[in-house]
Amino acid sequence: MSQLDFTHDPAAQSWVVSANAAATDFPLQNLPYGLFRRAGSNEAARVGVAIGDQILDLQLAAAAGRWSSAEQVLLQALAHGDLNAFMAQSQARRRALRQALFLALQAGSKQEAALRPCLLAQAAAQMALPCRIGDYTDFYTGIHHATTVGKLFRPDNPLLPNYKWVPIGYHGRSSSIVVSGSTVRRPLGQLMAPGAEAPVQAASKRLDYELELGLFVAGGNALGEPIPMAEAEQHMFGVTLLNDWSARDMQGWEYQPLGPFLAKNFATTISPWIVTMEALEPFRTPFSHPPSDPQPLPYLDSPANRAAGGYEIELEVWLQTEAMRAQDLAPTRLMRSNFKHAYWTLAQMLTHHASNGCNLQPGDLLGTGTQSGPAAEEGGSLLELSNGGKQALSLPNGETRSFLQDGDTVILRGYAVKEGARRIGFGDCAGTITPAPRATAG
Amino acid sequence: MSQLDFTHDPAAQSWVVSANAAATDFPLQNLPYGLFRRAGSNEAARVGVAIGDQILDLQLAAAAGRWSSAEQVLLQALAHGDLNAFMAQSQARRRALRQALFLALQAGSKQEAALRPCLLAQAAAQMALPCRIGDYTDFYTGIHHATTVGKLFRPDNPLLPNYKWVPIGYHGRSSSIVVSGSTVRRPLGQLMAPGAEAPVQAASKRLDYELELGLFVAGGNALGEPIPMAEAEQHMFGVTLLNDWSARDMQGWEYQPLGPFLAKNFATTISPWIVTMEALEPFRTPFSHPPSDPQPLPYLDSPANRAAGGYEIELEVWLQTEAMRAQDLAPTRLMRSNFKHAYWTLAQMLTHHASNGCNLQPGDLLGTGTQSGPAAEEGGSLLELSNGGKQALSLPNGETRSFLQDGDTVILRGYAVKEGARRIGFGDCAGTITPAPRATAG
Repeated sequence: MSQLDFTHDPAAQSWVVSANAAATDFPLQNLPYGLFRRAGSNEAARVGVAIGDQILDLQLAAAAGRWSSAEQVLLQALAHGDLNAFMAQSQARRRALRQALFLALQAGSKQEAALRPCLLAQAAAQMALPCRIGDYTDFYTGIHHATTVGKLFRPDNPLLPNYKWVPIGYHGRSSSIVVSGSTVRRPLGQLMAPGAEAPVQAASKRLDYELELGLFVAGGNALGEPIPMAEAEQHMFGVTLLNDWSARDMQGWEYQPLGPFLAKNFATTISPWIVTMEALEPFRTPFSHPPSDPQPLPYLDSPANRAAGGYEIELEVWLQTEAMRAQDLAPTRLMRSNFKHAYWTLAQMLTHHASNGCNLQPGDLLGTGTQSGPAAEEGGSLLELSNGGKQALSLPNGETRSFLQDGDTVILRGYAVKEGARRIGFGDCAGTITPAPRATAG
Repeated sequence: MSQLDFTHDPAAQSWVVSANAAATDFPLQNLPYGLFRRAGSNEAARVGVAIGDQILDLQLAAAAGRWSSAEQVLLQALAHGDLNAFMAQSQARRRALRQALFLALQAGSKQEAALRPCLLAQAAAQMALPCRIGDYTDFYTGIHHATTVGKLFRPDNPLLPNYKWVPIGYHGRSSSIVVSGSTVRRPLGQLMAPGAEAPVQAASKRLDYELELGLFVAGGNALGEPIPMAEAEQHMFGVTLLNDWSARDMQGWEYQPLGPFLAKNFATTISPWIVTMEALEPFRTPFSHPPSDPQPLPYLDSPANRAAGGYEIELEVWLQTEAMRAQDLAPTRLMRSNFKHAYWTLAQMLTHHASNGCNLQPGDLLGTGTQSGPAAEEGGSLLELSNGGKQALSLPNGETRSFLQDGDTVILRGYAVKEGARRIGFGDCAGTITPAPRATAG
């Protein structure tokens, strides 16, 4: 925990007064990066930092503020909207810019007058994907999810023998990753009814969400050169919420033997603000597997990982149906969980991924897999909460849900809280389901 | 077959005399695109067209040749090394440029004097990846491969029930795709010996190749908008050879339940020249599933696909070991097969991929899966040829191979031949295995 510095002081306040509200996701201690333009404009997207209910426009701030020459160099890439170039910088440089931004936005800063015109209300901004995502990989670190879902797909064999040795992952689709607020069209797919002789192509009837975190890679590694655990943290940039939308009926029919494909790649939604590893530093927690479980192989083990490889991050799923919107009812919370239950750490995911020499690149995205808690009501997907669709959930307005219906809005929320630290949040990761297209003929 | 035009005339000859040799892969009727720079230089890579043993440098040719204004527009993107921008053009425009290049390079062309200085010997060029590959997907269309390998991994259940309904595919890794000639480092991975209590991290002992074709996407589709079969061909740009290097021991342990990951993503090699769909037009062939098999669902069926959805492309794997190189022995051929045996067509792969609304983008790469023929000696991988490693192959110099050894060079070759058409080829897709790094500790 030696990486704590003055930017983690829970008492620090900002001259942006909304950042001092107890409930804000974006206090001075957070300072996440995102890509935005003014809503309704055709401006080129540029990088900003969320502060309270405002965005500090780094294009304007680079010009208006007073910065050291080293800070100016870092701000230039960001001013041009190239977050990937900043992600590729060393951990020390990224930390230095965080410190500079913290001091500039802190209450009493002499930069207030110069930077105040560089603020844009978040309500007036349209967010874009924060960076170019070259490759997207999804892991499977939620052992409670893996066990519960495993039971549904393979009643006799829920948790496979490799699970406690291998941080299981698979490649996802980069092109269909969208930012929070984008609609998600219900997919068409092959559905094979139980006992049927042939599948049909139809709209998925078992559309679901999955509650995940996404880790963005900072600097990469050369092809053929693994990243040892001791260096993994240097390659971690930050974290968003991630909704791995899933069509369960398509998944069950297509996934053998090569894994999920069309059941997943129609859309993946991420929250717009990347919360940096530096901001998450106070929420690290010791990590170990139960003594009765296999201990990690040497290449997945390190003293730092055991001491503080975990992160305590509260996670929630909220739902607002079309009827609820019409009735002016607020979203209802479906579940809560915490990332501390993950069976593998972010560092282990990253090191495992590169252990065969696979080259990671700045901006690559690593999903954690669905983060379900140990209790049945802590399932990170409807598949779990509805017991495979057999027990529909009752919503406060009398509706029920086994799977998602058109018009449903799913909102993931996340925040980190700890005694002695300032609470920080991730902002919403939201998506609304729109109807499927008609089935296509040849 | 209505798309044949004067560029397919088998009698046509080029003023580049090496293009008229019977054995060349690159006669005037081929004209594939690739990205190159002068070997040993730091030049920006630019697009060229292979002709005989030469490359027509399109940067120089755009300036030196006489072209219509429409052709100039198309050549400008290529001159700047941006093949993706050209791939996104309509089928009609891509065909128009092929016709213009054909006429310019044809024997008797008035452009000969202007274009002759735009040639570079292929032997003096260093090839790069031909375009930016946003997403890479690998299919599994080789039914003989799927059956043989299925028997090894699942003796009781070789070909799963979905195989004859779903063009099975999974996402691969884009960042580790390399061009022919790149070395491939043997990966470290978790190996679980039969009967062992725990896996160990060690260099793969069962390193293998897979013989595939790769389809490059031309124009893409918007997220949420499927591509019907009737439009699939417009979205197809061209084809390369593709070696999906595979570590069988890692694959067997890791692939359940989410599919191949580290066993595949350490490297994928493609041949440098993209042979366009226009060049492959004479080699199209009727396509159907056996009458006793399920017929394609309507969304995967079209009259054009039935009439000519297949492509007859001869495929070969050659091996040259380190000892063979030391003894000055030429590579030896391990097998032959033909893409006509594939169970699904290129158009079906593409339409299936987009059928759930997944957005394809220009330059995306779709592997066909391993193309094994029906006979045992036509296996497209060593796993098949050595019967799961149980029967080593004998090489002409007395060596044997069950799987690849360090120093082995694997070369994929492909060509299309047909009565009444000029033979065209793909050029080599070669890679040499280098030793694994030491196993990493934490």
